[in-house]
Amino acid sequence: MAGSLEGIKVLDLSRVLAGPFCSMLLADLGAEIIKVEQPGVGDDARAFSPFIGSESAYFMSLNRGKKSVTLDLKDDKDKEIFWELVKRVDVIIENYRPGTMEKLGLSYDKIADVNPRIIYTAVSGFGHTGPYSQLPAYDMIVQAMGGIMSITGEKDRPPVRVGTSIGDITAALFATVGILAAINSRHTTGKGQMVDVAMLDSQIAILENAIVRYETSSKIPEPLGTRHPSIVPFQAFPTKDYYVIISVGNENIWSKFCQVMGLGKYYDDSRFKTNKDRVDNVIKLEEIISSVTITKTSQEWLEILREVGIPVATINTIDKVVKDPQVLARNMIIELEHPIGGKMKIPGNPIKMSLTPPVIDTPAPLLGEHNSWLLNEFLKKE
Amino acid sequence: MAGSLEGIKVLDLSRVLAGPFCSMLLADLGAEIIKVEQPGVGDDARAFSPFIGSESAYFMSLNRGKKSVTLDLKDDKDKEIFWELVKRVDVIIENYRPGTMEKLGLSYDKIADVNPRIIYTAVSGFGHTGPYSQLPAYDMIVQAMGGIMSITGEKDRPPVRVGTSIGDITAALFATVGILAAINSRHTTGKGQMVDVAMLDSQIAILENAIVRYETSSKIPEPLGTRHPSIVPFQAFPTKDYYVIISVGNENIWSKFCQVMGLGKYYDDSRFKTNKDRVDNVIKLEEIISSVTITKTSQEWLEILREVGIPVATINTIDKVVKDPQVLARNMIIELEHPIGGKMKIPGNPIKMSLTPPVIDTPAPLLGEHNSWLLNEFLKKE
Repeated sequence: MAGSLEGIKVLDLSRVLAGPFCSMLLADLGAEIIKVEQPGVGDDARAFSPFIGSESAYFMSLNRGKKSVTLDLKDDKDKEIFWELVKRVDVIIENYRPGTMEKLGLSYDKIADVNPRIIYTAVSGFGHTGPYSQLPAYDMIVQAMGGIMSITGEKDRPPVRVGTSIGDITAALFATVGILAAINSRHTTGKGQMVDVAMLDSQIAILENAIVRYETSSKIPEPLGTRHPSIVPFQAFPTKDYYVIISVGNENIWSKFCQVMGLGKYYDDSRFKTNKDRVDNVIKLEEIISSVTITKTSQEWLEILREVGIPVATINTIDKVVKDPQVLARNMIIELEHPIGGKMKIPGNPIKMSLTPPVIDTPAPLLGEHNSWLLNEFLKKE
Repeated sequence: MAGSLEGIKVLDLSRVLAGPFCSMLLADLGAEIIKVEQPGVGDDARAFSPFIGSESAYFMSLNRGKKSVTLDLKDDKDKEIFWELVKRVDVIIENYRPGTMEKLGLSYDKIADVNPRIIYTAVSGFGHTGPYSQLPAYDMIVQAMGGIMSITGEKDRPPVRVGTSIGDITAALFATVGILAAINSRHTTGKGQMVDVAMLDSQIAILENAIVRYETSSKIPEPLGTRHPSIVPFQAFPTKDYYVIISVGNENIWSKFCQVMGLGKYYDDSRFKTNKDRVDNVIKLEEIISSVTITKTSQEWLEILREVGIPVATINTIDKVVKDPQVLARNMIIELEHPIGGKMKIPGNPIKMSLTPPVIDTPAPLLGEHNSWLLNEFLKKE
């Protein structure tokens, strides 16, 4: 069975993370990705550590299943090839700073003139409109500006970033949704359009309840460590060897939790009777629960609490994650063999589909690996 | 112009966050969302703080643009209505624990028998397969199990969660991509399918370079505060009033940075000459840069560094985010008027589309607000 995006052709000018993550998802889903790279150097991420031999493992993990062609977009001859590609593809993805494509003479307007059905996708730090449009951005910049950094970490400690580049990755996800929505719309309208996704906007969109908490109370949301702003107990507790996460999400779980922890006498305590009481007395309750959790290891608590159906977790480091039986059962760690880099493990695709599942079986391309395919096959077709 | 998903009908059985965030995106994009809620109580999130008057602001922010009908899925009469709905919709979304729909007699197989074109979307903590499938999950549980918690925060400090429910939200995003891919595939195959997205899997998929860093070095990635694992200087530095984020992403920026900070004598220092040198001597360099940044306020540094094009940010708290000129220019904070809750501000949609932009103009429904519409209009149509 062909992939769900079989037949969709994508001209991918993007580099580093946000754009390539988006085109990676499209590739997994069966689209044909023609990655355009600068001759000689290629995607900046080809130089990013860590390396396997001469190849960037970082680059390889994000560019599986794509084709690579090299074009110098400042060269007239190569531009001709670019315009031939424009005629033949469904989607363009670029993550230059706004204005760059215009300077190259490759504006959306010109592209849409040549191919009005094209879906032109621009992923940028701040978007193609607004006063910050031209400012330089990195993931950490938008994490800081977008509010997520202000509610992550511990109070009265230095700021921390989300440990993964959530600014890039959520922008990639929203861009992917936008592309697929635009493809759907094109079935009806016959027309393509521009999809403009900003990393900063994407941070605002994932703030969840922080905005409504502020708007309804005027209290500025603060970082809470692992604590939940409105459910208690719902956090990490210290154990003999580290911490364990316990999430008492409702009264039924609270009852079971008190029993199994030997805290039965607190179940009817007026300080802890309802979730609201527990929120009001969180410091005292944290102290009581910690005095119990500290007596056993995290793994022991995991087994005890899981047995009775209480939501519980140990904090897995990456070495544990890649061996986790559920992660493996769901094919979330896959091995690809790269002709130069050799075997490497990379994350799988979390979209499990019964009829047209994502397929990840082709390693990242070498720089310009598909140049002759482009000239001798792809562009020869009508 | 109609939305990009105009005509797509979604039967949404989901509650709380992951499922409703997915159907919210579909609603913004023009799909018709028929949210099925339990009579009397409705979506659990209707009881979640904060409230505006009697209405949950949390619920309202996630359920804009949807219709609400109440059905008791354990009641035979209501089940008949459910099956009539199944015949008429394109997509089902549910986020029950795996097995629940089967127990209700509403398994995917039965649903696909009645409507083979339906796209059945299940969002769950661990997915519908694998050994943990039946375990209870909350966002924080998958943040802990999936590795992101182990690389977020400060070393030798207690664990912290990402301050927003990234486990739910990324699962919602991947599910949305899966639904739209399946709709695209249906144009060719004529067939629907099951899309099974797990919160845990979604955490693995966003680990970015953490997995390849571990696989190539066997060194377990650690939390680094705001520091970047392989680019220096790229972190928060202390200022007179708080911290400022500075991202020196390449050598050109490094040169400008040394000049403007009055650190010219370190530019040629062999300890800091290349990024690799700076990574090796990060502690010393952090000390040097901090001794300069501490002399001015964050806002002063923002202005000085922005002026010369160095990526820089202050760490915006939520009160600043909702007033940020770029955030406002991009329509990322929108105001909706709810008939009972009144006016409220909620995050906008980050997918900016030139032809069929997302539209957010209808507040969240009251419980069962569309019951009579369902019976007297929707189900009357062929």
